[in-house]
Amino acid sequence: MPIDISAEFAFHLDEPTDLLLQFEAAAIPEQKILSSNTIMSPALHTARVPAHNDIGERIWIRAEGNYSVNYKASVQVERLVPKLDGLKRLDPHDLPGETVEYLFDSRYCQADRMQSFVADQFGHLSGGEQVLAMRDWMADKFTYEPGASNATTTALDTFVERRGICRDYAHVMICLARASTIPARYVSCYAPGVEPPDFHAVAEVFLNDPTTPGGGAWYIVDATRMADPEKTAKIGIGRDAADVSFLTTFGMSHFDNSTIRVTERS
Amino acid sequence: MPIDISAEFAFHLDEPTDLLLQFEAAAIPEQKILSSNTIMSPALHTARVPAHNDIGERIWIRAEGNYSVNYKASVQVERLVPKLDGLKRLDPHDLPGETVEYLFDSRYCQADRMQSFVADQFGHLSGGEQVLAMRDWMADKFTYEPGASNATTTALDTFVERRGICRDYAHVMICLARASTIPARYVSCYAPGVEPPDFHAVAEVFLNDPTTPGGGAWYIVDATRMADPEKTAKIGIGRDAADVSFLTTFGMSHFDNSTIRVTERS
Amino acid sequence: MPIDISAEFAFHLDEPTDLLLQFEAAAIPEQKILSSNTIMSPALHTARVPAHNDIGERIWIRAEGNYSVNYKASVQVERLVPKLDGLKRLDPHDLPGETVEYLFDSRYCQADRMQSFVADQFGHLSGGEQVLAMRDWMADKFTYEPGASNATTTALDTFVERRGICRDYAHVMICLARASTIPARYVSCYAPGVEPPDFHAVAEVFLNDPTTPGGGAWYIVDATRMADPEKTAKIGIGRDAADVSFLTTFGMSHFDNSTIRVTERS
Amino acid sequence: MPIDISAEFAFHLDEPTDLLLQFEAAAIPEQKILSSNTIMSPALHTARVPAHNDIGERIWIRAEGNYSVNYKASVQVERLVPKLDGLKRLDPHDLPGETVEYLFDSRYCQADRMQSFVADQFGHLSGGEQVLAMRDWMADKFTYEPGASNATTTALDTFVERRGICRDYAHVMICLARASTIPARYVSCYAPGVEPPDFHAVAEVFLNDPTTPGGGAWYIVDATRMADPEKTAKIGIGRDAADVSFLTTFGMSHFDNSTIRVTERS
Repeated sequence: MPIDISAEFAFHLDEPTDLLLQFEAAAIPEQKILSSNTIMSPALHTARVPAHNDIGERIWIRAEGNYSVNYKASVQVERLVPKLDGLKRLDPHDLPGETVEYLFDSRYCQADRMQSFVADQFGHLSGGEQVLAMRDWMADKFTYEPGASNATTTALDTFVERRGICRDYAHVMICLARASTIPARYVSCYAPGVEPPDFHAVAEVFLNDPTTPGGGAWYIVDATRMADPEKTAKIGIGRDAADVSFLTTFGMSHFDNSTIRVTERS
Repeated sequence: MPIDISAEFAFHLDEPTDLLLQFEAAAIPEQKILSSNTIMSPALHTARVPAHNDIGERIWIRAEGNYSVNYKASVQVERLVPKLDGLKRLDPHDLPGETVEYLFDSRYCQADRMQSFVADQFGHLSGGEQVLAMRDWMADKFTYEPGASNATTTALDTFVERRGICRDYAHVMICLARASTIPARYVSCYAPGVEPPDFHAVAEVFLNDPTTPGGGAWYIVDATRMADPEKTAKIGIGRDAADVSFLTTFGMSHFDNSTIRVTERS
Repeated sequence: MPIDISAEFAFHLDEPTDLLLQFEAAAIPEQKILSSNTIMSPALHTARVPAHNDIGERIWIRAEGNYSVNYKASVQVERLVPKLDGLKRLDPHDLPGETVEYLFDSRYCQADRMQSFVADQFGHLSGGEQVLAMRDWMADKFTYEPGASNATTTALDTFVERRGICRDYAHVMICLARASTIPARYVSCYAPGVEPPDFHAVAEVFLNDPTTPGGGAWYIVDATRMADPEKTAKIGIGRDAADVSFLTTFGMSHFDNSTIRVTERS
Repeated sequence: MPIDISAEFAFHLDEPTDLLLQFEAAAIPEQKILSSNTIMSPALHTARVPAHNDIGERIWIRAEGNYSVNYKASVQVERLVPKLDGLKRLDPHDLPGETVEYLFDSRYCQADRMQSFVADQFGHLSGGEQVLAMRDWMADKFTYEPGASNATTTALDTFVERRGICRDYAHVMICLARASTIPARYVSCYAPGVEPPDFHAVAEVFLNDPTTPGGGAWYIVDATRMADPEKTAKIGIGRDAADVSFLTTFGMSHFDNSTIRVTERS
């Protein structure tokens, strides 16, 4: 069944300011864009560039004053979603070169700091079973609490405070996987069932499905358990939230409001 | 004149451990590898993968016990090194998609935190002139002090404490440039003149040379002023030191020693 | 002329929760409490204890549900306010024992990190002249910007970002003084002229007035320049904001609103 | 049985520098100083001041060049050491005013960040039983590892990394107690059994012994389990290590070496 997406947001710029936007569902093999309509306020300059790993697009704008974005799309998700606990860990020397950057520490994900904890808590498991145990540990120990975190909150903060929103859950999940030498990346997405409705974020881990050919693939893990990977429309990916914000301002902006609606067509 | 490089380092692994090595001068158009010889201890597994942005190679090893690396190479640097102050800033919407990740905050480079400072201190300048002023400000205000920083030191720490080593200088330089919406990345390298002799690190900024065709290129800036860009042999690049460590251990290692020698053939 | 103070604030506690309140002008020699009236909602428990260094009082309450505080007072300030630039630095070995804790790093004031900067920027000055130069440097370089900081913002954050509110200004001012081995503490206070009207915070430094007997005293420095030390009614003091919050919750509270009015009687 | 203490340490000061030393066992009711001998290099200035809460003394010196300290003492510990699990929590409104500062966050102890964790992990217990469970959880989950931390390591770092030395253990223990509204402070001390022999640090919690009169007292908790409270000679106390370093330099010093020996006379 297609996913219908509606995203509206608006902001104000006191002076001419450069911004990066990334809010459209990505046109990638695992999800078909059935229809898409983007309406943006006029800008002084606009340019589209490929986003991280060529998944989705970023839109440069330079604008001033009130600015609004109105996006509507229907997406057919055709992703294979095997059971996580049947997936196997790849030995590091079997990891493709392009996955290596997803093992390293990034802005919000200081994974190396969590190696002792991960070895102690999850060291008896491996691969998909280990990732599942990490996800379930988070579901058990963490509280979803809008307002408990902000734009500077790191995975280390969230790991200590044990509460946050989707972004924070994804950051901790990424750290736990990386600390076990499993490549993990951040996915911004639209998904029905997210409460309150908003842009969503999940983690993806690079594991191997022994029942399919090839040397590994990326699999979604949502530690908040709100999104179903079979109904998740990806916007973009990156090392962490720093790479795939829907709005990055190179200057000062005042965010007005956003209304996100994601529904599964019945 | 060719640069002769000799790098030896050794470490100990208590148990079988995965490591990533990246220590060889990269085979890229701007520098010709005249000769190269790498001798490494036997490992349980070894695999070479392309490094970040396909510049250089990373070597996966899985090994145990004492491990040593002995690398010798001669490199002919053929990089164009225009005067920095003749280079121009590209408008953000003219930046190629692959440079955008180098505008974002990364593990050690929280550039967004420095926007107010950069606007105040360097806002009257632009492009290469601005980058030069940033470099000279650092040369004036910062002290090169081995031992004053460690593996967890961030650009923010160094910005406050105003001392550190090449890695720390590069991190602050990267932040200052990014805070002014100039893409900036981290380069690990070999360079004669580094004192004490060691692996070196510099920043690269993405600017436009109006006297040459094309839409911008990467230019080296060494805030320590120890390395000459015309004699610098690049190993690899990344967002910051997290991406291009010569040795990344996924587990525990004991570093024994290293001896780096870089000389310009006379 | 007396200062008239009116402070009202209210919050909600989902379950029985312990809180510390400290919002009344302190009864100390340098300010005379002409009148004072505190009305608080009934609590499960209430206890008054002396506050830090016996300056002012803290009120323990244990309460549940909606809770409000209504405080009115008139305070006659009789503090001596010499010119800062006539004050002298005390040699460390002449500092009284009770001032020593105000040289150390505290929760929000990592002063040791700023020693290099302070030596470089202000090392040619000493005592009150140095403190004045620090205050004026902050007035020049920092922007008063409500909303730019939060409860976890440290002096180091503010030093880098160069913006914040009274609390952040006081924290940086304290660090700069401590980094120069001048004891510095945090003062929560009421002062006319604070815009927007709110609880205020300033720094105090321990210096010696050569024209008066005795070995040093505490002098107010307001880096925001909004408060006049001759009209500032102190609530309490501490190492930084962690010690003198008007409301510290040991559990969860929802803050509703506050209305602070401070006027100078004409 | 008396404890015999021998402490020698030396450092070098490139230029005249102010320092604070605090290394002598405190003369307090719970421990009798049988004999004591302190030999220090000549200094430009020396002054003794009472230390935090009048427990022990700090020594100000101003010195230059090589400086050494040689301290020998015999101390009879006469502290009452009840079983921790028989001690009761005091309601916050019953806490004496002078204990309140030990509930607040301090430089290395960001206790408020750990409230969710403490409520979840230890919320079913109270008082001494809860403190014991915290200590045993640390003994189970943390690894004593010299070299894994440094002077900037906070309790939050250690909580995530789960390794450190006595100072780090004490900081986490303090946070856990404070997060449960139990006053907790840092104690620097000498104790036989510390391996490798060095200055030691433990936590103290403020609890009530129902079998003795009075409203609460401080009780030692050593999360490293190396020190026996009946044989521990206190040097000083504070909110965390920032308050009771044996050597605080206001400038640059080069630490040469230290030799600490603590033995129980048989």
